[in-house]
Amino acid sequence: MYLQLSETGPFPRRTHTCGSLGLDDADKRVVLQGWLVHKGKVNKKMSFFGIRDSYGTTQLVVDARKCGADVLAAMREASEESTVLIEGIVTQRPESQRRDVPAGHVEVLVSSFKLLNPADRNMPFMPFDIQNLANEDLRLRYRYLDLRRTELTSNLKKRSEVAFLVRSTLHEQGFTEVETPMLLNSTPEGAREYLVPTRVKQSSSDTAPQALFYALSQSPQQPKQLLVASGAVDRYFQLARCFRDEDGRKDRQPEFTQVDLEMAWVSWGKERAAGEPSSQSDPDPWRIGGHEVRDIVETIIRRIWKKIENVELEDRFRVMTYNQAMGRYGSDKPDLRFGLEIQDITSHLPQPLREAMEANGEILEALVVTNVAEHTPFVRAASEIEGDKSIERLQVAPSASSSWLSQSRIAEEILSVTTPALEAFELNSTLGLAEGGIVWLSRRPRRPEGGWTALGRLRLALAEAAQRRGDLVLGDEPQFLWVTEFPLFTRADEDKEFLAHGRWSSSHHPFTAPMSEDIEKMYAGKVEEVRGQHYDLVLNGVEIGGGSVRVHDAAMQEYIFAKILQLDEQEQSSFNHLLHALRCGAPPHGGFAFGFDRLMAILCKTSSIRDVIAFPKTAAGSDLLFKSPSPSTAEVLAQYALRPL
Amino acid sequence: MYLQLSETGPFPRRTHTCGSLGLDDADKRVVLQGWLVHKGKVNKKMSFFGIRDSYGTTQLVVDARKCGADVLAAMREASEESTVLIEGIVTQRPESQRRDVPAGHVEVLVSSFKLLNPADRNMPFMPFDIQNLANEDLRLRYRYLDLRRTELTSNLKKRSEVAFLVRSTLHEQGFTEVETPMLLNSTPEGAREYLVPTRVKQSSSDTAPQALFYALSQSPQQPKQLLVASGAVDRYFQLARCFRDEDGRKDRQPEFTQVDLEMAWVSWGKERAAGEPSSQSDPDPWRIGGHEVRDIVETIIRRIWKKIENVELEDRFRVMTYNQAMGRYGSDKPDLRFGLEIQDITSHLPQPLREAMEANGEILEALVVTNVAEHTPFVRAASEIEGDKSIERLQVAPSASSSWLSQSRIAEEILSVTTPALEAFELNSTLGLAEGGIVWLSRRPRRPEGGWTALGRLRLALAEAAQRRGDLVLGDEPQFLWVTEFPLFTRADEDKEFLAHGRWSSSHHPFTAPMSEDIEKMYAGKVEEVRGQHYDLVLNGVEIGGGSVRVHDAAMQEYIFAKILQLDEQEQSSFNHLLHALRCGAPPHGGFAFGFDRLMAILCKTSSIRDVIAFPKTAAGSDLLFKSPSPSTAEVLAQYALRPL
Repeated sequence: MYLQLSETGPFPRRTHTCGSLGLDDADKRVVLQGWLVHKGKVNKKMSFFGIRDSYGTTQLVVDARKCGADVLAAMREASEESTVLIEGIVTQRPESQRRDVPAGHVEVLVSSFKLLNPADRNMPFMPFDIQNLANEDLRLRYRYLDLRRTELTSNLKKRSEVAFLVRSTLHEQGFTEVETPMLLNSTPEGAREYLVPTRVKQSSSDTAPQALFYALSQSPQQPKQLLVASGAVDRYFQLARCFRDEDGRKDRQPEFTQVDLEMAWVSWGKERAAGEPSSQSDPDPWRIGGHEVRDIVETIIRRIWKKIENVELEDRFRVMTYNQAMGRYGSDKPDLRFGLEIQDITSHLPQPLREAMEANGEILEALVVTNVAEHTPFVRAASEIEGDKSIERLQVAPSASSSWLSQSRIAEEILSVTTPALEAFELNSTLGLAEGGIVWLSRRPRRPEGGWTALGRLRLALAEAAQRRGDLVLGDEPQFLWVTEFPLFTRADEDKEFLAHGRWSSSHHPFTAPMSEDIEKMYAGKVEEVRGQHYDLVLNGVEIGGGSVRVHDAAMQEYIFAKILQLDEQEQSSFNHLLHALRCGAPPHGGFAFGFDRLMAILCKTSSIRDVIAFPKTAAGSDLLFKSPSPSTAEVLAQYALRPL
Repeated sequence: MYLQLSETGPFPRRTHTCGSLGLDDADKRVVLQGWLVHKGKVNKKMSFFGIRDSYGTTQLVVDARKCGADVLAAMREASEESTVLIEGIVTQRPESQRRDVPAGHVEVLVSSFKLLNPADRNMPFMPFDIQNLANEDLRLRYRYLDLRRTELTSNLKKRSEVAFLVRSTLHEQGFTEVETPMLLNSTPEGAREYLVPTRVKQSSSDTAPQALFYALSQSPQQPKQLLVASGAVDRYFQLARCFRDEDGRKDRQPEFTQVDLEMAWVSWGKERAAGEPSSQSDPDPWRIGGHEVRDIVETIIRRIWKKIENVELEDRFRVMTYNQAMGRYGSDKPDLRFGLEIQDITSHLPQPLREAMEANGEILEALVVTNVAEHTPFVRAASEIEGDKSIERLQVAPSASSSWLSQSRIAEEILSVTTPALEAFELNSTLGLAEGGIVWLSRRPRRPEGGWTALGRLRLALAEAAQRRGDLVLGDEPQFLWVTEFPLFTRADEDKEFLAHGRWSSSHHPFTAPMSEDIEKMYAGKVEEVRGQHYDLVLNGVEIGGGSVRVHDAAMQEYIFAKILQLDEQEQSSFNHLLHALRCGAPPHGGFAFGFDRLMAILCKTSSIRDVIAFPKTAAGSDLLFKSPSPSTAEVLAQYALRPL
């Protein structure tokens, strides 16, 4: 019953992969191992099979008169997806039958056959039946079957290739890969982190055992800053596994991979040559420090796109300030593959309206779809999209093309009276508006906040609708963009409010340096005016990475903690080691990190990061294959000085 | 008070590293950034300083008449270990003063100076004061200071270099690096694993919330087998972080790194060419399968030793069976850098003794130190080492050189009577024993068990004592050795007894395949006679890695689980996904893993793996820098449906 000795005993070594055979191998004796494929094509003399491995499929020809009837019988009897070993002679296929796929020019005349491992005849699904793809939960449960699918196989290989390319590039550039701890300290709030209880140590004291915890690293931010502060390496990188408890966020995984780098001795302002005065006017739109980081990141990205996509990216990626991005595209990660820019129309408004807005510190923005050629893809979409309730949608009437502003609810709200006489002549000319044109209006504070404006979301909704209708086809050319000069502090981030409790939060993290020009403002308490030396890298409207020049001055860092973020003593104490490291002569430093899973999903042209991870978890954090998470017992928990609630 | 604007404002970009300057750079204007070193040498005209980065130190010459007195004053005032920026001109040092270190041929005449970040004048210790190294706890607490020490800096760089070399080699050999989950399923016993509680999901049901846990991956064993079973990649590797709760084990870390690989289509027996009959006699001492894995591992190791040590290792590493290693060296990881072999003297014993031993299934072993040249290093050590209480130490008397056996307590125990007439003539000749020689005797069952025999430990103790005395100097040449043909099952492993409860355990893990020759014995219930297709790689007496050919036959794997290991249903169910993967046509496969921290410690010639890890924990698992583990609050624990005990 158990014994399958013939299948598990010794067998000859594989001499070739199934996908590697070519015309050069003709007449060679080969040993192939792979999965058996039934071809079902049989004539009186010859039977055909395939043998597949991860490199390709070789056609097998079986002539029972030559190899014996038992070989043919055994092959027929073996189920599909069984692993088998065949020995045979490579022969050229007739020229008419050659195909341009791996091993497509040859076939192998089988001389012997061995069943290495039979596949169950009732598998949950057949992985190559991609016309009838099983539902995702079933495929995740039997991931070892689904991974046979060519798409997933090639995603994993591409991921490995890109990771190696990143490492090669960084090694060439003098970077040292350093592994930082994944078992780190837990924070008092425990936000988003995973705790790891530790077993209670046997102690001679009589005090009650206390549960103690590590926390899984959410990112290597603090270790890498300490490392670079140490001076042990001045160029650090790591492909780091990170852990974040973000249940319910779409397409996130509890564990994910980050390409993380940090450099010492980064610059702190506009690029200039040694000795050149810093006051010289400079057209470089990158007006913050961290040029060294920018150079490296662009090099990595260019090499990836060259190797994987065979695309030569521009020498320098575009740069835009946060204010520009929010103003023109209504987003801090604008998609530049289409136009449809937002316009600030405040200065073109009739005087009473303009003055009222300026008095409020507000602006009026407009997005317009009219009958010019570049708007054509959006015309049909415009008819279906309203925008959220803060947005007003108006259409220019055929008969009275300058009267639409008079009908504006927003204008009325601003002026607090109905104003029938708001002529829009100047606006129509500025916006290129004409009869039938559609205009969406939105008022907002002059200083943008957060990641989106109302019109920014509308712009994206219009483009999505236009794509769905087939009116808009986005170009293949990737649109990379740096966004810089973010506000250093914010009160507009809901995610951070959980910990901030109404205080200022850091827009990115509390270690980001202010722009040199804004340091005095910061110490003067003009918190909202301070811009940070932060840079986000955006691709086609997706933020693929970000980083910053860090504060290296302990006094400045302490000021930020205590005076701006108003951390209490306990909160501050969790940064004591970092402050002390700064006090020990830390060099100026800065870094960058990009999400590797998201980048790979883009390169593999899939919308789900689960398609680029070998063994992913569901959106709810369940691993359907390994059956985790799962309960434990009171007995086990007691070892950690814990018990069920 | 907070404002240090001058230190944090913009500054020119670094043009050179301190260690890279050479004669070619003479007369160049350079910008250097690094740590200030006070040289203390001042004459009337010139002052000297150093500037250090992780590449080396450049000598700075300050001539106050040229650069201004304020520059000199600022440099004198700046504390050691402050980070500074200097601009200046490279000049050649007088030939007599040139030194063969990085930047040792030049110095820089300073023109301007900027303090980038002042170092505290009261640092916990000065990292370069290696004569007065602070105690390890203090250095771990301020690891960012200790890492400045050249030894640690160069260890981290070497680690990065070796990791990249491993990856490069495996990529060249067609391996795919695949990241496997670190958040895996917990096992019912929870042995050695770290649990990771998950936050309770908001659920509409009224049932009490239940705590659910992931467990941190102890090794990628199961994911990698499933991956290779899937066929997505036939050559997998990963530099994998692993987590094991092994409190109290010397020189272990809660998290460590493993170079992990697995290959599909591995051979299952002695190497032979396609078509060659398997019965042919073969002098290859590697008589198990997995040749493909052996080839790769030897290639990696050879490339590391070539690159890092500039040593050409032998084409094939030595191979020894477990029985040979235990017999000759009394260890399953023998140190071959010295001889002093153990001998089985049973067949040379006087007849009554020999027959009594054979009847018991026992052997008598001897280790001898006598007056031959090769024993000279051990003579003084032999006089101080007794061996444990199971060992008998006898000395050959000057007057009656063949009577020592008659005085043996062990011989008396075996025969259960005093036997004055046990002549040792034949033994003396076999062992080369002469007057004054020392012989240690030990009896043991003929079939060795576990990792050591009593004489094996004695052999090592002798060598250690001889080294301490300076009598034995071990060669530099690394002694690599494969040990194969381990018993597949054991009852002698104390570590495993915790889970085995008196049942058989797998010597390595339950997925290791039996040797083809022993499969029938296994099914016949001769469990103790079955040898596994396992291979350990040993270097100078240290096991640096191990692996095996796996079971790919689901029926065989089930037989091992149920009939040999006698796992109960719950225990078996945790392997269900693996069994099912085998049933879906898994290819024959095998792999290997080596401990990367241990390997790096060997290459960095340090006895502590903490010296090759950027931020290590203490032996007790504490992180003195990040202050972990630490307590949590009842409020936080409640989110996981947990509370303190």
